[in-house]
Amino acid sequence: MMPLPIHELLLMFAVLLAGAALMGALAGRLGIPPVVGELLAGLLLGPSLLGWVEPAPTLKAMAEIGVALLLFEVGMDTDLYRLTRAGSKPVAVALAGFVFPAVGAYAAAYWLFDLQQLVSLFIAATLTATSIGITVRVLKDLGRKHSEEARIVLGAAVLDDVLGVIALAFLYQIAVKGEASFAAIAPVTLYILLFMLLAPIAAKGVAWIIGALDRRSDSPALLLTLVVALVLAFSALAHAVGAPILLGGFAAGIALGRTFRVELPSSIRLPFRAALSRMLAADPDIAHRVQTETRPLVHLFAPVFFVLVGVSINLRLVDWHSPRIWMLFGVLLALALIGKWLSGFVIREARLRQHAIGLCMIPRGEVGLIFAQLGLTQGILDDGLYAALLLVILFTTFLPPFLLKGFYALWGNHPALRLDSPARSPQSISE
Amino acid sequence: MMPLPIHELLLMFAVLLAGAALMGALAGRLGIPPVVGELLAGLLLGPSLLGWVEPAPTLKAMAEIGVALLLFEVGMDTDLYRLTRAGSKPVAVALAGFVFPAVGAYAAAYWLFDLQQLVSLFIAATLTATSIGITVRVLKDLGRKHSEEARIVLGAAVLDDVLGVIALAFLYQIAVKGEASFAAIAPVTLYILLFMLLAPIAAKGVAWIIGALDRRSDSPALLLTLVVALVLAFSALAHAVGAPILLGGFAAGIALGRTFRVELPSSIRLPFRAALSRMLAADPDIAHRVQTETRPLVHLFAPVFFVLVGVSINLRLVDWHSPRIWMLFGVLLALALIGKWLSGFVIREARLRQHAIGLCMIPRGEVGLIFAQLGLTQGILDDGLYAALLLVILFTTFLPPFLLKGFYALWGNHPALRLDSPARSPQSISE
Repeated sequence: MMPLPIHELLLMFAVLLAGAALMGALAGRLGIPPVVGELLAGLLLGPSLLGWVEPAPTLKAMAEIGVALLLFEVGMDTDLYRLTRAGSKPVAVALAGFVFPAVGAYAAAYWLFDLQQLVSLFIAATLTATSIGITVRVLKDLGRKHSEEARIVLGAAVLDDVLGVIALAFLYQIAVKGEASFAAIAPVTLYILLFMLLAPIAAKGVAWIIGALDRRSDSPALLLTLVVALVLAFSALAHAVGAPILLGGFAAGIALGRTFRVELPSSIRLPFRAALSRMLAADPDIAHRVQTETRPLVHLFAPVFFVLVGVSINLRLVDWHSPRIWMLFGVLLALALIGKWLSGFVIREARLRQHAIGLCMIPRGEVGLIFAQLGLTQGILDDGLYAALLLVILFTTFLPPFLLKGFYALWGNHPALRLDSPARSPQSISE
Repeated sequence: MMPLPIHELLLMFAVLLAGAALMGALAGRLGIPPVVGELLAGLLLGPSLLGWVEPAPTLKAMAEIGVALLLFEVGMDTDLYRLTRAGSKPVAVALAGFVFPAVGAYAAAYWLFDLQQLVSLFIAATLTATSIGITVRVLKDLGRKHSEEARIVLGAAVLDDVLGVIALAFLYQIAVKGEASFAAIAPVTLYILLFMLLAPIAAKGVAWIIGALDRRSDSPALLLTLVVALVLAFSALAHAVGAPILLGGFAAGIALGRTFRVELPSSIRLPFRAALSRMLAADPDIAHRVQTETRPLVHLFAPVFFVLVGVSINLRLVDWHSPRIWMLFGVLLALALIGKWLSGFVIREARLRQHAIGLCMIPRGEVGLIFAQLGLTQGILDDGLYAALLLVILFTTFLPPFLLKGFYALWGNHPALRLDSPARSPQSISE
């Protein structure tokens, strides 16, 4: 493919950004998560309808950078320590919300629709994600951000993000090798585990150097530029060890988050122990500035990815008369809804709160789209399967806000969902 | 050229950003303008030395976006109304600082070095720029930002930016046509003039729509994304009418600046006159948010351009034993220094202040580099000429801070340069 002339590329990029912004804002006005609007903008601008935007290499590169930065932001918001202190309920909900849809979707895809094992695994993984962003937003809009169900769901959603990223790393390996055998994934499993373990510590070390440089310099651009360089370098490194690119952004984000720290086992005697501990502790001031300065970048680049998700499929080529696509869509949608809904019932809570938790777990959003897109680019999903999955993700993303609003309108004043229950919600959840 | 694999591109981008940030910060520590550090980072990382970074299409596209955003920022800071009210001194200095080096360099290149007319024109134009950023920074560091010489120089530098961008538009045309005849440039001159006249008004209209959308939406990403889309679309439009891409960013910046307004001639009767006036007036709140949110983007993307300036030349291919390059360098450097220096003496001021103004006008910085790079990519400058010009720009960019510091250390307390002269500095210059 010839590179586009620069002015065509600039115009295409402008159209893409304007479409993403307008459709995202329109979705927001209608109470639908903006990511749905961005995806629809991609379908509108791509070959399915207008054909104004094509996935040019430069746009694809920007989309990858956008996802790496988005996962960096997710990583920064991930409080591993709060997760370990949050008790067993979020863990139980997260595991149930991961396993139920995964097992259901795998079984349906493999036995009911006779799809290959790898394809079935990918479909299953795509349905495991929980979009914390959408859930937080809806609960905030409903004034429920400090409720007990919010506390449980937010913990579970973060855990699902982590589980999802790890699952994705494995699936990516399997996809690259083309088979799901132990021998195929054992070596890279080791690499990935090492990466997930060491990358945050290495990133923390680099971040410490960046912070020290930043204090010694009066260049306002230094911090942001070096942090983005770090995210990109770790993304490239993740790719080199056989993990998906976004894992690098996630690991860097974990390391630079406000709450990151490494507990050095006290049994080990280390030289410079105190200095090392200090170096590995979070610097809230730097973390705050990094978050503030990377936000415009995420705003600008992440939508490029979601628009390209829509651009990368030509809905005209999908055989919409095939009953198989519609059956697949219907079955997967049902499993995606029911699987997450049921996850609310594995913990001991009032019946209504169990429903609320289950509903909150439904949105797939960004992470689901990242999975599906990877399946397409790796050649695992064909256009029909990809279209069916996109539809499932779309529905699971835009239905929950309405379901939750309806739910709370009906039962929000019920004693079981009272907000002022000090015994149950000792901690407030900050955004 | 095959597109690079994504992880190589990410790594190269990371190396480029880290190099730009570190060398820029190092330059800042040494009192040298950061752009010098970024250019040296390019020489270091490019084929001249390490060969780690190559001008991949995606990086080039990001560099173009960086320049468009940089000129957008320059445009936003350009206060056309203050310029018209600033009196004749800045205008005289600006014109002298534009004409003296241009005529000198053209004469030397054309008659002394027997270069072609077009090549001579390009070299002349490259030496006309005055980098307002570097001058402001140095005067601020020296506590001279509110002095009378600062007032004159800042006005003159802004005017030189505008003159430079216009000169560049014409040269670009001549370069594309390959000849400097009236017939070759007359039609596009009209287009460019129309563009420069109408683009800010059109951009203002779009900006008004963006502002209205932003007020009706609670999406935090809407404003920035749409403004960047506007800048990119105007850049593509500028290219379409035959002007360089950066002119689009500049026009959009002028329109969105805090001080932009269009005086509707009162003799013309218009329907909705009041509404139209309101629509074309500046919205300081939006302007402030746009500046704040685009700054991280400029920080990240503009250095990509300056690093690529260094990457796009292979110093090993330059015949450094040729006395011609060194003579060209020496003559042009002398003309570049003296031409700007003399510009201080065309106005009636104390002798010392004339010197101060002349020194302040010397830095070429960003705009000079943009000119030189355009000359290279249009095939007008060969590697040797490009190298000589880069050296001239480098010297005129990093010498002035030292010259000015030395100058003020010697004569800063002289009565002629007193700061508290209320009759002479009624207006303070805000950054």
